[in-house]
Amino acid sequence: MNVRVVGRLLGVLLLATAAAMTLPIIVSLLYGETDWQVFMISQAAALLVGGSLAGFLRDSRELRTKDGFVIVTFGWIAVGILGAMPFYLSGAIPAFTDAMFESISGFTTTGASILNDIEALPHGLALWRCQIQWLGGMGIVVLGLAILPILGVGGMQLFKAEAPGPSPDRLTPRIKETARLLWVVYGIISLVQVIALMFCGMSLFEALCHSFATMATGGFSTRAASVGAYDSVAIDVVITVFMFIAGVNFSLHYAAVNGRIKSYWRDGEFRVYVTVILLATSIIAVSNIQATEMSAGDNVRHSLFQVVSIVTTTGFGTADYEGWTSLSQFVLLFIMFVGGCAGSTGGGMKNIRLLLLAQHGFNEVRKLLHPRGVYVMRYNERAVPPEIMTNILGFFLLLIICTVTATFAMTMVGLDLISAIGAVAATINNIGPGLGSVGPTDNFAAVPLMGKWVLIFCMLLGRLELYTVLVLLTPDFWRRF
Amino acid sequence: MNVRVVGRLLGVLLLATAAAMTLPIIVSLLYGETDWQVFMISQAAALLVGGSLAGFLRDSRELRTKDGFVIVTFGWIAVGILGAMPFYLSGAIPAFTDAMFESISGFTTTGASILNDIEALPHGLALWRCQIQWLGGMGIVVLGLAILPILGVGGMQLFKAEAPGPSPDRLTPRIKETARLLWVVYGIISLVQVIALMFCGMSLFEALCHSFATMATGGFSTRAASVGAYDSVAIDVVITVFMFIAGVNFSLHYAAVNGRIKSYWRDGEFRVYVTVILLATSIIAVSNIQATEMSAGDNVRHSLFQVVSIVTTTGFGTADYEGWTSLSQFVLLFIMFVGGCAGSTGGGMKNIRLLLLAQHGFNEVRKLLHPRGVYVMRYNERAVPPEIMTNILGFFLLLIICTVTATFAMTMVGLDLISAIGAVAATINNIGPGLGSVGPTDNFAAVPLMGKWVLIFCMLLGRLELYTVLVLLTPDFWRRF
Repeated sequence: MNVRVVGRLLGVLLLATAAAMTLPIIVSLLYGETDWQVFMISQAAALLVGGSLAGFLRDSRELRTKDGFVIVTFGWIAVGILGAMPFYLSGAIPAFTDAMFESISGFTTTGASILNDIEALPHGLALWRCQIQWLGGMGIVVLGLAILPILGVGGMQLFKAEAPGPSPDRLTPRIKETARLLWVVYGIISLVQVIALMFCGMSLFEALCHSFATMATGGFSTRAASVGAYDSVAIDVVITVFMFIAGVNFSLHYAAVNGRIKSYWRDGEFRVYVTVILLATSIIAVSNIQATEMSAGDNVRHSLFQVVSIVTTTGFGTADYEGWTSLSQFVLLFIMFVGGCAGSTGGGMKNIRLLLLAQHGFNEVRKLLHPRGVYVMRYNERAVPPEIMTNILGFFLLLIICTVTATFAMTMVGLDLISAIGAVAATINNIGPGLGSVGPTDNFAAVPLMGKWVLIFCMLLGRLELYTVLVLLTPDFWRRF
Repeated sequence: MNVRVVGRLLGVLLLATAAAMTLPIIVSLLYGETDWQVFMISQAAALLVGGSLAGFLRDSRELRTKDGFVIVTFGWIAVGILGAMPFYLSGAIPAFTDAMFESISGFTTTGASILNDIEALPHGLALWRCQIQWLGGMGIVVLGLAILPILGVGGMQLFKAEAPGPSPDRLTPRIKETARLLWVVYGIISLVQVIALMFCGMSLFEALCHSFATMATGGFSTRAASVGAYDSVAIDVVITVFMFIAGVNFSLHYAAVNGRIKSYWRDGEFRVYVTVILLATSIIAVSNIQATEMSAGDNVRHSLFQVVSIVTTTGFGTADYEGWTSLSQFVLLFIMFVGGCAGSTGGGMKNIRLLLLAQHGFNEVRKLLHPRGVYVMRYNERAVPPEIMTNILGFFLLLIICTVTATFAMTMVGLDLISAIGAVAATINNIGPGLGSVGPTDNFAAVPLMGKWVLIFCMLLGRLELYTVLVLLTPDFWRRF
């Protein structure tokens, strides 16, 4: 490992995060509250640590793959600690573990919370909570489209030739350039949402918070009743549209911004994503007709909102779906695992993986009939190399192995079976609300201390596509560097 | 498809099953009850249908792979219908669907039941219920070790060179010979168990029934409280030992009978199986110390019994594990999916698949560090060909696809989410008791009609290793034959 380069980059990440704290400081001052102080202290700490790392460590050697794994994992942990500081220092979240849980939940765009009274937060902290999701989402988009393909993680190599860049069909070799282009797109869309929400009657503050949480598919809200608190058709529609957008591969948005609007429909994963949403909404809306007393319009509105919120793993709520039919609940549970598209801010398995896994399953059945037949997997009219397929299968396996191991740990610290399974599924898939005692109407405050750390680890694991974190746990990794 | 050969073999299967009904007829007559009549009627029907199929259809052409799939699936369905007849005709199970459910549950050695009052059954029917499990187990052993490897199903080709036969290292080309050898072993072990149970104080009738259900890892009992009704240490120990034996690959038993007793420990899957049992028992016993008031001896006895009963997917119970710690419950839930060894009568995923899947997952992580490294999967010191690995990965995928689809169907007919998931997991893995309203202290009687048929299909799917049934559902299969 190249300690100097890694240290320097971690320092830069800390400085950038500290710079982002300027926004909550302004908000805090505008509202005449005192939480700007803790942000200033955090900034000073980041300046000290990040500044010395970035300033003193210089090295001209190139980054190697190994360094990439270290930077990604420790980068998320470092900004997580910095993000937790304001919550902890202000006393808004008195326990350090809880502050870390909330911060990592934010930066991984999970949306799981330990806060019992969200509406009691001062404005600066409430904004920061949503803003770290937005920053995390930014990181995820660049990670998924520019960094992971190079590291060879989790089948993301499929995007090597598809991520945006100045030349239409080749990835810009420099991650910096890709990142800049994606962030422009990410920023523009976020800005449009802020304006749209203000047209619907939201204050600038609330529009900012909800746009941050929407674009990151994070799901933190300033209200205890989530988006349902507004009970506004217009707000529901705007948030539905932007959750949908946030769940799409950002390289498609980039292409669209550059005039290639047809890229959407040409993309196999996008078609699956749209199909899943329409199918799930139809099933749930029809199933709800018998079971609830909503008007037809409300039924469609709430069904669509909930489907998009859950498939993108955002986790906003407008209706209490725990009262819906068990068919509806199962559909919601299933699409939780499906997740968004690769290269989006959404969590879950990702549509492309499911598409390829299903294809593989069917091919194996067909092979029984024609054992000597050749079955080429295709995605967007290109053949999927077999080594990427085994990589995706491996991802699926590791997801299950990690889920089982973490659930085992959660039952050990004393959670009941359903809550343990729900808590792990909700964090490792970066969904947010779980089942049982950590379900959508509860939160994670009551989870024992050790359990919270297990879940923090799960959020990182899931968000960094498992491989990136797991590789650091192999003895081989540390043997020679 | 060669209709004549297929028909003839199905006829032979019906005749053999009808012949097996002689045992319950004798029992019925000995106990002076009247249920012998329905067995005679069933025999007559089988003689008529099976006899005409076997007698009139003759064809010298060879069986092809396609015919094999048809015979296996339709064979299980045909004997299932015949097995259901006595229950239905006697009125002991008034609805045909319920009779089919109980019969298919028996022949697939699942052990899920719709009977509310087991102890009200006349002796002939009670015996028959356990006997069909034993017959099903016989079928499974031959299927797993002799038929599936030839059909190329579900990674079972690994056993091509390992199944028993006159020559030590090659599979006997004729299935008949393999079947005969395996059945001798199966019969001898069953007989030893009957004698052992009688030494523990069971009547011949009860010893027969419980041996039938143990060797098949089926789990039907003559008592509503299952094996717990006897509350006898000796009986618990005997049944634990024989459940353990039934969960082992029968080709290892065959080798042992032929003096090659070391084959057990040389087999990688056997070692995993033993390790899983010891580890799970230790965790549960330690976890139970704090939570229950059992004596140390009872604790170990019940923990071991429950672990072996569940890992082999037998489903016998001696203690109410729903009151154990959530850690214990999670361990039990996990080993349910692990299942027995391949080539045993146990259900679940099978230890060998899990062993290879876990290896594959770890290899994929290691590949990130050394992308050009060569990772050869090994089993019993032989390399596992990559095409078998993709086949096993495909199996795992299909299992999940089928589970999701069936759970979807179960929520559609109105089951709550937990019961739907539990019912499908319990039937597709051939375990028996599920969760929620179909949990270990309840049964499947209250499941709606359509739901019962879905579960019947699940039992067949799981028992015939998915592929065998799924291949019949592809349009390709029926296009040219």
